[in-house]
Amino acid sequence: MTYGARILEQCNELGAISEDRQVLTRRYLTPEHRRTAEHIARWMHAAGMTVEIDALGNVVGRYPAADDGAPRVITGSHMDSVVDAGRYDGVFGILCAIAAVSDLNARGKRLPIAVEVVAFGDEEGVRFGFSMAGSKALAGRFDMSLLDRRDAAGVTLRDAIAAFGGDASAIAGLSRAHANVAAFVEVHIEQGPVLLDEGLALGVVTSIAGSTRIAARVSGVAGHAGTVPMGARRDALTAAAEMALYVEAYTSERADTLVGTVGKFSVAGGGAINVIPGEVAFTIDVRAGEDAARIAAVVNLERDCRAIAARRGVTLDWEPLFELSATPCDEGLQQRLAASIESLGITPRFLRSGAGHDAMEMAHVAPIGMLFVRCGAGGISHNPRETMTADDASAATRALIHFLENFDGAANAGSG
Amino acid sequence: MTYGARILEQCNELGAISEDRQVLTRRYLTPEHRRTAEHIARWMHAAGMTVEIDALGNVVGRYPAADDGAPRVITGSHMDSVVDAGRYDGVFGILCAIAAVSDLNARGKRLPIAVEVVAFGDEEGVRFGFSMAGSKALAGRFDMSLLDRRDAAGVTLRDAIAAFGGDASAIAGLSRAHANVAAFVEVHIEQGPVLLDEGLALGVVTSIAGSTRIAARVSGVAGHAGTVPMGARRDALTAAAEMALYVEAYTSERADTLVGTVGKFSVAGGGAINVIPGEVAFTIDVRAGEDAARIAAVVNLERDCRAIAARRGVTLDWEPLFELSATPCDEGLQQRLAASIESLGITPRFLRSGAGHDAMEMAHVAPIGMLFVRCGAGGISHNPRETMTADDASAATRALIHFLENFDGAANAGSG
Repeated sequence: MTYGARILEQCNELGAISEDRQVLTRRYLTPEHRRTAEHIARWMHAAGMTVEIDALGNVVGRYPAADDGAPRVITGSHMDSVVDAGRYDGVFGILCAIAAVSDLNARGKRLPIAVEVVAFGDEEGVRFGFSMAGSKALAGRFDMSLLDRRDAAGVTLRDAIAAFGGDASAIAGLSRAHANVAAFVEVHIEQGPVLLDEGLALGVVTSIAGSTRIAARVSGVAGHAGTVPMGARRDALTAAAEMALYVEAYTSERADTLVGTVGKFSVAGGGAINVIPGEVAFTIDVRAGEDAARIAAVVNLERDCRAIAARRGVTLDWEPLFELSATPCDEGLQQRLAASIESLGITPRFLRSGAGHDAMEMAHVAPIGMLFVRCGAGGISHNPRETMTADDASAATRALIHFLENFDGAANAGSG
Repeated sequence: MTYGARILEQCNELGAISEDRQVLTRRYLTPEHRRTAEHIARWMHAAGMTVEIDALGNVVGRYPAADDGAPRVITGSHMDSVVDAGRYDGVFGILCAIAAVSDLNARGKRLPIAVEVVAFGDEEGVRFGFSMAGSKALAGRFDMSLLDRRDAAGVTLRDAIAAFGGDASAIAGLSRAHANVAAFVEVHIEQGPVLLDEGLALGVVTSIAGSTRIAARVSGVAGHAGTVPMGARRDALTAAAEMALYVEAYTSERADTLVGTVGKFSVAGGGAINVIPGEVAFTIDVRAGEDAARIAAVVNLERDCRAIAARRGVTLDWEPLFELSATPCDEGLQQRLAASIESLGITPRFLRSGAGHDAMEMAHVAPIGMLFVRCGAGGISHNPRETMTADDASAATRALIHFLENFDGAANAGSG
């Protein structure tokens, strides 16, 4: 069996471990997390690694270097999921890394670097309302006050860790800050259509986009849909609709650098067919690989949405909810990953990641690189229709093996 | 005290009779309907009328003509309310009519017409999901299958009528179809800003607008807000936003004849900040005083919204929910009401009614006319901020007295 077919079988096997019988949902520190971790630990062991489930429920497999004291490359991704998820998001990057190590091990091949494969317990953040608990800890950036966060059932993270068999007091010891990590490399399904549209199996991530999220609220004047003439209206809905279209138009004109999305949009009280909406709330999500482009976009969008509000005689509340800087990938690692893709006869495509990844946290302790794998079905993700082919899974594994075998073990030349 | 100040006091008194302590809500056949009916009956009696609460809970006051067998003019409006209503919608037209009769009675004045003042029990239709139960019965158009309709608590209309002390078996006998009704005239607060904006206390309604209501649903492709480039999106929300703006633009260009409103607008599942909406449902309400203009508008809106959908690669479901023809007001009654307004030194303004009224049903048994009274606070209605001045209430009462005193009792010359 090819690497890819085997990995896709494993993805199906893990995809069946769900809190919900109808759809795939696997949150942090649940019994389903435990079962998933045990499967992964077994596969890591079979691939020749020593294995540990750490104090936060991350599964860590270690494949030693030829020499003691060599630097290490960490690779892996997350094993939790969103609600009603696809089967590849996260777990593919873990299983691809295990397959790569398995290949090295079968050939009795030791490298000048140690390889550490990590299956992070929490990246999506569905259960406790913050994301990347596992990679935050490995990056030495876990804020202990997060232990008081509660899930929807009122259980604190602290208690959930204890119930899982973890150890919150050992979190500080998980940091890789002083561990001589030469690189963190994450393989991940693209979750978008760029590689699919260009007919390419693999791509090199240039940057993980930063994002700004805004809560906007338009207040106009509610009125009777039959009795208020068009010229006398201060319709909150059409004002908000014009703003949503403006967000789309602005980011579409700058589509090389930006994406912009209005994801929520609701009329206060639900609205009624025969009432002119008096208040509409909506959200804006703007992302860019470069922070300057994103920050300029948000300034311009606010200014121009305020102009729309003024022209229409409605008021606009504009509340930034969240801001996250972009994380550039290491230039040298990008070149190494491109060379590994080229070794398979595939033209390297450089693209940004619009989604967040554990690599954003790991960038605090090592140069990072990301390899994207083509996502089928139009690029859909966070959805059960997410797909990947066995051939693409094999290509990703071969590229990762090439990368590891050719990594020279020195701190990366291009990083800084 | 002027007519107006007294009527506004009565509006406040009735406005305090509510099912809800916080807001004004008075639905059909509730204990609050009963208490309201008893107040109105007492005031009708004091104004010199014989009074009856009929089989459907309508309050009917009769002021006889000088001669037996003379034709009658029916006037009045509704005493039920929407949820969280204003104090003038409906009840003003009843109290204005009572004040007019009271004035005639105080002067011992008998007319060549009998005057029948009706307080309809149900116009808004909040409780049983259909409107104008009272005027449907007086128009001889009450469909007896409506008796099986249930309210939110599961009570049938039939049982609610019995519990109120009414008599469903007597509905057919309420018809005025053969009652020699020369005219039905309804006085009502405008519920819009036209008279307010033009500085006029009163106006003559030309037509009660017809309306079409449409449920639209746009289906695109959901996606990750960070990973799908702008050019690869099939965003249901921005497509629906473009359609909502188009409805606004189309009707605004034809604002003399049309109004168009998108009142509901929701993302399937509520949406998420970081997800491109895959499905959006919204409603369209189009109204016009002339049916041909409305029907043409709906055809054009559907065609052009389908073109927007096609251009954006999304699908559009377009389901007409409801259609109601316009009800023109009688030309002769319009002229008579205009003359009554002019007798007060006010320039008559002719305008359409965008809202539905009991007059729409009564048009099936008599020529109809409507007198609109200026609505304060920007024209807001169906809202506790609905206001009217005592001076305007007085002007409306004087105009109605003038109209009744000058009505010649013959079937209206201009009707047909």
